[in-house]
Amino acid sequence: MTIARGGRLPNGLDAAMERLNTSVDVDGELWREDIRGSIAHARGLARAGIITDAEAEAIVGGLGRVAGEIERGELRFRRDREDVHMNVEARLVELIGAVGGKLHTGRSRNDQVATDLRLYCRRLGEETLASMERLAGVLLARAEVEIDTLMPAYTHLQRAQPSRLSHHLMAWQELVWRDHARLTDGLDRANECPLGSGAVAGSGFPLDRAGVARELGFASPTRNSIDATGSRDFLIEIASALALAAVHLSRIGEELVLWSTSEFGFVVLSDGFSTSSSMMPQKKNPDVAELVRGRAARAMGTLTSLLALEKSLAFGYGRDLQEDKRPMLDAFDCVLPCLDALAGALATCHFDAGRMRQALERGHLCATDLADFLALKGVPFREAHHVVGALVREAEAQGIELSALPQATFAAAHPALATDERRAALDVALAVERRTVLGGPAKSTVLAAIADARARWLAVSAARG
Amino acid sequence: MTIARGGRLPNGLDAAMERLNTSVDVDGELWREDIRGSIAHARGLARAGIITDAEAEAIVGGLGRVAGEIERGELRFRRDREDVHMNVEARLVELIGAVGGKLHTGRSRNDQVATDLRLYCRRLGEETLASMERLAGVLLARAEVEIDTLMPAYTHLQRAQPSRLSHHLMAWQELVWRDHARLTDGLDRANECPLGSGAVAGSGFPLDRAGVARELGFASPTRNSIDATGSRDFLIEIASALALAAVHLSRIGEELVLWSTSEFGFVVLSDGFSTSSSMMPQKKNPDVAELVRGRAARAMGTLTSLLALEKSLAFGYGRDLQEDKRPMLDAFDCVLPCLDALAGALATCHFDAGRMRQALERGHLCATDLADFLALKGVPFREAHHVVGALVREAEAQGIELSALPQATFAAAHPALATDERRAALDVALAVERRTVLGGPAKSTVLAAIADARARWLAVSAARG
Amino acid sequence: MTIARGGRLPNGLDAAMERLNTSVDVDGELWREDIRGSIAHARGLARAGIITDAEAEAIVGGLGRVAGEIERGELRFRRDREDVHMNVEARLVELIGAVGGKLHTGRSRNDQVATDLRLYCRRLGEETLASMERLAGVLLARAEVEIDTLMPAYTHLQRAQPSRLSHHLMAWQELVWRDHARLTDGLDRANECPLGSGAVAGSGFPLDRAGVARELGFASPTRNSIDATGSRDFLIEIASALALAAVHLSRIGEELVLWSTSEFGFVVLSDGFSTSSSMMPQKKNPDVAELVRGRAARAMGTLTSLLALEKSLAFGYGRDLQEDKRPMLDAFDCVLPCLDALAGALATCHFDAGRMRQALERGHLCATDLADFLALKGVPFREAHHVVGALVREAEAQGIELSALPQATFAAAHPALATDERRAALDVALAVERRTVLGGPAKSTVLAAIADARARWLAVSAARG
Amino acid sequence: MTIARGGRLPNGLDAAMERLNTSVDVDGELWREDIRGSIAHARGLARAGIITDAEAEAIVGGLGRVAGEIERGELRFRRDREDVHMNVEARLVELIGAVGGKLHTGRSRNDQVATDLRLYCRRLGEETLASMERLAGVLLARAEVEIDTLMPAYTHLQRAQPSRLSHHLMAWQELVWRDHARLTDGLDRANECPLGSGAVAGSGFPLDRAGVARELGFASPTRNSIDATGSRDFLIEIASALALAAVHLSRIGEELVLWSTSEFGFVVLSDGFSTSSSMMPQKKNPDVAELVRGRAARAMGTLTSLLALEKSLAFGYGRDLQEDKRPMLDAFDCVLPCLDALAGALATCHFDAGRMRQALERGHLCATDLADFLALKGVPFREAHHVVGALVREAEAQGIELSALPQATFAAAHPALATDERRAALDVALAVERRTVLGGPAKSTVLAAIADARARWLAVSAARG
Repeated sequence: MTIARGGRLPNGLDAAMERLNTSVDVDGELWREDIRGSIAHARGLARAGIITDAEAEAIVGGLGRVAGEIERGELRFRRDREDVHMNVEARLVELIGAVGGKLHTGRSRNDQVATDLRLYCRRLGEETLASMERLAGVLLARAEVEIDTLMPAYTHLQRAQPSRLSHHLMAWQELVWRDHARLTDGLDRANECPLGSGAVAGSGFPLDRAGVARELGFASPTRNSIDATGSRDFLIEIASALALAAVHLSRIGEELVLWSTSEFGFVVLSDGFSTSSSMMPQKKNPDVAELVRGRAARAMGTLTSLLALEKSLAFGYGRDLQEDKRPMLDAFDCVLPCLDALAGALATCHFDAGRMRQALERGHLCATDLADFLALKGVPFREAHHVVGALVREAEAQGIELSALPQATFAAAHPALATDERRAALDVALAVERRTVLGGPAKSTVLAAIADARARWLAVSAARG
Repeated sequence: MTIARGGRLPNGLDAAMERLNTSVDVDGELWREDIRGSIAHARGLARAGIITDAEAEAIVGGLGRVAGEIERGELRFRRDREDVHMNVEARLVELIGAVGGKLHTGRSRNDQVATDLRLYCRRLGEETLASMERLAGVLLARAEVEIDTLMPAYTHLQRAQPSRLSHHLMAWQELVWRDHARLTDGLDRANECPLGSGAVAGSGFPLDRAGVARELGFASPTRNSIDATGSRDFLIEIASALALAAVHLSRIGEELVLWSTSEFGFVVLSDGFSTSSSMMPQKKNPDVAELVRGRAARAMGTLTSLLALEKSLAFGYGRDLQEDKRPMLDAFDCVLPCLDALAGALATCHFDAGRMRQALERGHLCATDLADFLALKGVPFREAHHVVGALVREAEAQGIELSALPQATFAAAHPALATDERRAALDVALAVERRTVLGGPAKSTVLAAIADARARWLAVSAARG
Repeated sequence: MTIARGGRLPNGLDAAMERLNTSVDVDGELWREDIRGSIAHARGLARAGIITDAEAEAIVGGLGRVAGEIERGELRFRRDREDVHMNVEARLVELIGAVGGKLHTGRSRNDQVATDLRLYCRRLGEETLASMERLAGVLLARAEVEIDTLMPAYTHLQRAQPSRLSHHLMAWQELVWRDHARLTDGLDRANECPLGSGAVAGSGFPLDRAGVARELGFASPTRNSIDATGSRDFLIEIASALALAAVHLSRIGEELVLWSTSEFGFVVLSDGFSTSSSMMPQKKNPDVAELVRGRAARAMGTLTSLLALEKSLAFGYGRDLQEDKRPMLDAFDCVLPCLDALAGALATCHFDAGRMRQALERGHLCATDLADFLALKGVPFREAHHVVGALVREAEAQGIELSALPQATFAAAHPALATDERRAALDVALAVERRTVLGGPAKSTVLAAIADARARWLAVSAARG
Repeated sequence: MTIARGGRLPNGLDAAMERLNTSVDVDGELWREDIRGSIAHARGLARAGIITDAEAEAIVGGLGRVAGEIERGELRFRRDREDVHMNVEARLVELIGAVGGKLHTGRSRNDQVATDLRLYCRRLGEETLASMERLAGVLLARAEVEIDTLMPAYTHLQRAQPSRLSHHLMAWQELVWRDHARLTDGLDRANECPLGSGAVAGSGFPLDRAGVARELGFASPTRNSIDATGSRDFLIEIASALALAAVHLSRIGEELVLWSTSEFGFVVLSDGFSTSSSMMPQKKNPDVAELVRGRAARAMGTLTSLLALEKSLAFGYGRDLQEDKRPMLDAFDCVLPCLDALAGALATCHFDAGRMRQALERGHLCATDLADFLALKGVPFREAHHVVGALVREAEAQGIELSALPQATFAAAHPALATDERRAALDVALAVERRTVLGGPAKSTVLAAIADARARWLAVSAARG
């Protein structure tokens, strides 16, 4: 029976209630943070003169032993001890005796778990940021290598305009860049220490909250005890950033699935990132990309759960908040392994420049350039668009490319198209290089974008230390 | 390395990919269903003459041994064997040799896992239905016992009209009734057997699909192999029913939390369903009700995940679908323990009839009855409503109840209120019994509703066997 | 100022509150149902002797005039009258005088709006079912016409096994079939009449609830007044069915987008269902399919909203429920136009049988058949799978199809492959026709499936009348 | 017929498709932003020498006339012109002739709408920030006025520890503070200009993107054309911030609903923020608080929709993105009016200090203080907790408060409780003032927190200008 029932509820829980109530199968994952927080709290108690230095040392030593036992798999958490906090405290008392009962002085599980959660988010968050940086590094490297690989840009999944692979990879990189910034913001905002907030109305002891916060690496203590123990918006913000990052990875995944089809053939994943089929011996499947898409779906669910959990919840702490753990763990699990696997897959895949180049040959990809050509001659763009649209329609009817229409057809469509000058407009390679506008796919523009991005990533990665 | 890589991908997976790819930590939960399905498939292969009876017997015997090993905790699933299917098959081959390799004839993991999932949903679904029936039984029993306990009905959480506790409990029972019906519908629709659908385009062997379906207790085989292997709407429908059931339980939970407050004081939970605080020794908290609310939040997330998973997913099977397992397991986990714990809490709680009766005394709860009284005298209701509203305003200004206003005030407000006849309209007990309208709170009406519900529940519970 | 404030709150609302409080911009959409319900209620009041027949006639006549004014766009709803109910009642009183104030006798907006919502769902639900039937009709018709069009079945978007277009279309049809059944179940469960439930504890008058229910086409009255006025699970169930249907349509949409690419080229949408670009004159985009995918995303959101709305909501009616209108309207709006547009697009598109057939030629699509061939020779399937996988690897290395490997390679791989017998296994057309297993793609099997489906659809469509 | 169909698709849309395709009913809301963006684009074209200054002037003048017509309600958008962009352009051409057709030179609807959305978010976002500042101002003002109002702090909705109303109001204020910061971050990240990105691969003209961005008040142009036209994470981030803010408001709403009950009686809302009932004349309902809770549910749905919309969406622009408008509009609509109404309700409500003080009298609220007292005497807290818990149990059995237990009972429980010293621990007012720990409810601590918050809000509000 959990010691938290104390003298108030001397009898045990009903079995059905215990099944619902126990949480250590999930929150056991927080043991590192729980022990770390308890060590800082014990030292804080001693500094405030609430326990003696010797007592603090005994507690800190005991917590170290508990940590060791868990690390080595020697300590099995007991469900009847409810949660990770009570499991650790109970084991501590077993190891060091009654003095272990002094650890919880001036503290509640409410400020304790809020601290654990923030420490956990920080640890996993930092890992996630590092993995994002690695993925960005792979994208930048591949963008550099593939700088001369031309491919169509698509809209509506229809071939739209000539572009280059590096430009596309740099679009992916932009997503990761913003995801990194958002997660950083969320982690920064979460980086405050709730310890000392007590159950809801503050600890009854004059704790050195700033000192404890510092020891745990927090930027500062939280500012209001009711808020600190009863709010989880830091989790929601982080889960939002993770869900959005997962959705972004799912977009990369979608394109890798597409590009891996026999029909597109733009990419071949390495065997180490491919799977086969239990039934069909010929299959080589892009599971990595599909799993990334699937995890995004799960990440979305964690956000729904966390928002719903907090919606209309009265202050202070309500036990509903127990259910924040699984979504939190899942949220990281839906992003971290995906980042690493995608980084590996993208580092080792083969882009088929030939198939990409081939795809540029059909689809009238320079139709816009031809309309632009007319616009430069003074034709209102809307009219130019109409003229070229009709030419494309004609080409389609004849089953040929726009550029292959006979001279006479061009001349009949518009006098400005009668001369050879139009040919340059219809050259895909020229069309790409014409787009030197900031954010465009011209070679020099993309190279500058890569250099700029590399510098930005270096800066944030250095800032994180 | 998983045997599914076969001869096509002779080398292993990259470590980052393996971390993302392995699923046995989650889908291991399906081992009973996996083995049950494999036994039926092996027998079906023999009946179709594709393997011999002796081979089938060897396989079935071997699968039984694997099941025993798992049951006894002797077989640890290996992550490098990817999933539960490959773990079971690989162990089977270890136990019975190459003939084990015949099990997967005419089958793919795609139809296999679809079968496992449906079997699992059926098993957990039946448990859930039984738990709903138990909860309904508790509600009906308490509704009978508390038939004479009057209490206010609330709207906007403001006291609205006189009612009775049994009527309220029967409202809760209606929710459970519909949840039971919805889950039953979902389970029925899911009760078709995908085995024989192969990877996507059907098994290449003339399997006796109807026989296998029968052996596994399915109503029939599925009708289209692409659909059977690539669709999970049965999961989504079941998760919808579960999420909605969870939301309903959360409403009961919300009211138990409210009613447990010192301020309401309508209910006292038994100690076996209450918890205390690690810090505040006086606390007795309604955690059971709060956890039920919290699980509803998580249940909502599982539904978001499953819908997002299937959205815009091209046919046939995509590996994204691997990620359906965790939400499915979670969906049941968010309902089953809640049903049982709530049933226990409601069976053992104490309703404080005195506090409820007291709450009827203030709040002008018969204001509607007074307006109705005027309406019966021919006053247009809208006018009657206005007259009584002004009287209530006057009573509030004086700090008294509507019924305590002096005779003269009533008379001044409307001549029809001048006589003593109005007193009956302002009596809370009479007001409740006046509501004999179908679905109303009069004693006889509620007793009839209880009898009717009891009969309905008996019928569905009997129908399930 | 709304008349609902009555004599209790004689002064108006604060402007900021009125902005939040007014709902007629959204619930005005329910005016038909509101008036229809009011007419039935007025007649019920007369039947119960609460108002006279003449009064009822005056009210019914007045409501008819209000309906006419709205229909003709003559009545502009006033935001300061809050909602559709108060707008209609206020206009009624303007038109017929004080007797209009008798309409609300024995009724509350709480049972009134619950009735309106159910009537609305029924009307839109029926339209949706009819549109689903039309879409299924198109799918069946195209499946018949395209019965000889072969194409690959895909898994993981990789070519997997030979199949036929009709089989694929019939998979889509299965989705629509189950969606139709689910929506029907939801509508049936919703088909109960709340009128007479009053605000929460039942009407104070002996209303003939069964008669009113019958007049409004409901199967029966609801059974508990607290439940009837405070529950919206009928909306949630219907929104679930719609969200799932939308997700299913999004899967069809995804495949149409894919198949419309230059790379796949399996389908050409008709111009009437295609759009171009404001900038790129050559574009012909499959917007219909993309919009269908996009609406599925919105449909998912409506479900999240409705579940979150009801989660942890105490009984009876809470004003939160006001916010159920927009999601309900949106849920239908995310399905109905999509069904109709998809039906049109599928009825008029061109399937390119040539491109589909071509896609069968590469991808070693009969590898499974070759392994099955070995299995029939007694080779354990797992071993056969390995042998064929290695052959595919060899073929890939040589850049040829499996079937094009030299005789010697086959013979070296396995003696059973040494003879010409293996050739039949590697013929794509034979491979399709071999799959006569129930749910498989063989011609006769698919034709039987079409006939069976046609009969089922006829039955449900006839049942709806 | 929309002019975007150009010469490519000379015939109109099918009616079913047009119904799905038209979006002006929703995106018409963006007309201000659309015209503002077009004006900047026209001037940019002139600066780049692509059109003449005179042409630009004609266009800018024409756009001003279109804006005037819309503002005055003279221009009715036509559904057959599809969206706001085509409606504006078509009207422009009607007003100024063919030169209007030059506006779309070097631009696509893809970069145009991305610009409109960002401008719209900025405008509504700024309004939202201002409303948050106003709400915070109300909370700070009330916290100052109510500084001496004591009340219980609750956990699990059970009375937990003595606290003060101002401390509670400051907890609410912290939520708003972080919401303001999150929304600011999201708006900052969104503040980049997509114009010049073209349809996907960049405009074909050498536009001065930085200049156009500056003219529109953006911090900079976007960096990658594929990303700029195909990404909506800025919307998702803003919708996340809004959904979380809505959830926070729903928590305040929940407490206002609770506190408004007869049972709590902590607050009385002013009439201007209360509603009555159409049936029950006595009712005064806290609809403002309930509507705020309900809008939070809808806000959650908008986030689900937007995430689902972008999940697994291939680049560049897909028409799915059309469906981002309704969720975006709804997201703001679920927060802005709630902020304003809550600010008004909180500014005008009456807090009942008497009822709050009364609530402190029962619930053994100083049990923790008594345990702390023992802990200071050297008793391990866990033991102290147990001792006090048993005393509370005894007091409950006797139906009295902990502080009312006889001296002998205290002495028997623990020698340290034998003296009168314990009385100070059991005084609620002293218990509050003892909590001077940072973030605690002591008067001086809360006054300091108010001053600190006031300074912080002043700073951010000044920074926004």
